[in-house]
Amino acid sequence: MTLTLPPAEAARELVEPVLREAVGHLDPRIARVARYHFGWTDGDGRPRAAGGKALRPTLAVLSARAAGADLDRCLPAAAAVELVHAFSLLHDDVMDDDPVRRHHPAAWTVFGRAQAILCGNALFALALELLLEQGTPGYAAAARALNRATLSLIAGQTLDLEFQDRDDVTREECLLMSRHKTASLLACACSIGVTAAEGPAALAEALDAFGTEAGLAFQLTDDLLGIWGRPEVTGKPVLADLRTRKKSLPVVAALTSRTGAGRRLAEVLAMPGELTEADLRDAAHLVEQAGGRAWAELEARRRLDAAARCLDAADMPADVRAEFRNIARFITSRDH
Amino acid sequence: MTLTLPPAEAARELVEPVLREAVGHLDPRIARVARYHFGWTDGDGRPRAAGGKALRPTLAVLSARAAGADLDRCLPAAAAVELVHAFSLLHDDVMDDDPVRRHHPAAWTVFGRAQAILCGNALFALALELLLEQGTPGYAAAARALNRATLSLIAGQTLDLEFQDRDDVTREECLLMSRHKTASLLACACSIGVTAAEGPAALAEALDAFGTEAGLAFQLTDDLLGIWGRPEVTGKPVLADLRTRKKSLPVVAALTSRTGAGRRLAEVLAMPGELTEADLRDAAHLVEQAGGRAWAELEARRRLDAAARCLDAADMPADVRAEFRNIARFITSRDH
Repeated sequence: MTLTLPPAEAARELVEPVLREAVGHLDPRIARVARYHFGWTDGDGRPRAAGGKALRPTLAVLSARAAGADLDRCLPAAAAVELVHAFSLLHDDVMDDDPVRRHHPAAWTVFGRAQAILCGNALFALALELLLEQGTPGYAAAARALNRATLSLIAGQTLDLEFQDRDDVTREECLLMSRHKTASLLACACSIGVTAAEGPAALAEALDAFGTEAGLAFQLTDDLLGIWGRPEVTGKPVLADLRTRKKSLPVVAALTSRTGAGRRLAEVLAMPGELTEADLRDAAHLVEQAGGRAWAELEARRRLDAAARCLDAADMPADVRAEFRNIARFITSRDH
Repeated sequence: MTLTLPPAEAARELVEPVLREAVGHLDPRIARVARYHFGWTDGDGRPRAAGGKALRPTLAVLSARAAGADLDRCLPAAAAVELVHAFSLLHDDVMDDDPVRRHHPAAWTVFGRAQAILCGNALFALALELLLEQGTPGYAAAARALNRATLSLIAGQTLDLEFQDRDDVTREECLLMSRHKTASLLACACSIGVTAAEGPAALAEALDAFGTEAGLAFQLTDDLLGIWGRPEVTGKPVLADLRTRKKSLPVVAALTSRTGAGRRLAEVLAMPGELTEADLRDAAHLVEQAGGRAWAELEARRRLDAAARCLDAADMPADVRAEFRNIARFITSRDH
């Protein structure tokens, strides 16, 4: 989805130079793929207007501010989280055979699968190098936190793959997958600034919990937009996730609803060949009838409320709390 | 190649329990792939007699002994190096479409490419987790050293890929590729025990230099055996590397020799379709005539001598120095 954060969050402008500098230290063949994947260059290496929403760096910078830490000192952490995110997207596109990323041909279609896999590996290692080269106990702890979040992300990708071949996935399994695949890295972004600055452990834990809840709300919203989002906002075709028969949260909720609509939805999604526009509209209607949409909307609101409670319970400057809350609201709104 | 280290080096017995315990903490779907890849189970998850030569763990354990460190304390480092090695092999097989690993079907042929990629990623992250969870400055430094060795390894894999599509690779480029792809992780194995134990920096540097030279000698020998090794020793068919037209060091030396034999070798290797047994015998003869074999043998000896000099210049117990030297000799002998 396309997302522009409120102008107050200019984290991208702070973090991008750090990212570009770090990528410049990679082997030139790998750096070429990385620059393309980040949207800095086109397939021939010519500069391009950069895209990307920099959600994770924004959260990491806020995290440092929550601990009263020096902004400059937290930029490696913010860049490292973005590098892990980029790594996961590179590999996702290879594994899913997905030819498009952010409205452009995915890196593997330009440079080949092997180069995309290697570039992903290099970005992950580069993320850890950025943290470990700082040489402080706080940054060593931040490296461990990011590495553990990455292990969780990988477990989420593994579950996601498994679900593609199963027709008995439960809502709880699907939430667990989202917790791993989406929420763990967002939670890490929300707490890594505190950890790197050796701020209070209780603050890091509260922000991690906030990030987990907000991350789940974000995924639920993303899945709702994958069906009912407006193409001009999401950048995807109408009913995109039904087209690819993705086992998104509203769809799984509908399929496991034990309703007639849920059973009919299963039949539609099991039909061979491409689904027609009429099939797709039917399927969307059945998800709604089976209660999948209402459940996902309610669950997203619940998670957003839980996220807010995590923030309220933690000790941080009021303006930082307000910005965290704004971001959580923004990424779970219909307009991002 | 099949390799049995001298019985004195029972590092595998020390390290394997640490590896099995660590793998047990992974998501069960990923752990299944990892256990298969390590040779602990067959494709159905049934126990299998484990293989693997444990060269890197052996070197890491010796490294700790060089610094007079407690053996128990160095096992996470030894296991971590082996995990990175396993990660690189998993991804290599996917990228090269190689269906066989250690006489068994490669993991990706059993579990699919995506699962093999994800398992590789998880093993890399697990390696770093093993080091970072120790929580000491020495282990944080060891994590950084291993991470940097992995970045070098990835650069080597990238060069290797590039060379497959080029016919103007020089001997120097090929040595650089081997330095990255093979020597960097061996060098890390040779020094990580010292680093983790917070031993003298000069000792870690000397052992790193030893590992780099020994690693290059190892690769040169491996490339010689890839052409002239006995199948019952190498586990590969006769003339294996010529069959796959691999740009190994002796081949590149021959191709760039500016001799008639070198030019004829280029013609043979450029022939379309599978090479016949007669072509392969011709090609091996041409590598020899063009001086590729003699150069690789000489260069391997030079590197082995340089490795020995690194050992002699470093301060460590005499029995440890002798064991390092034995291993270097062993992995560059014709019989491993």
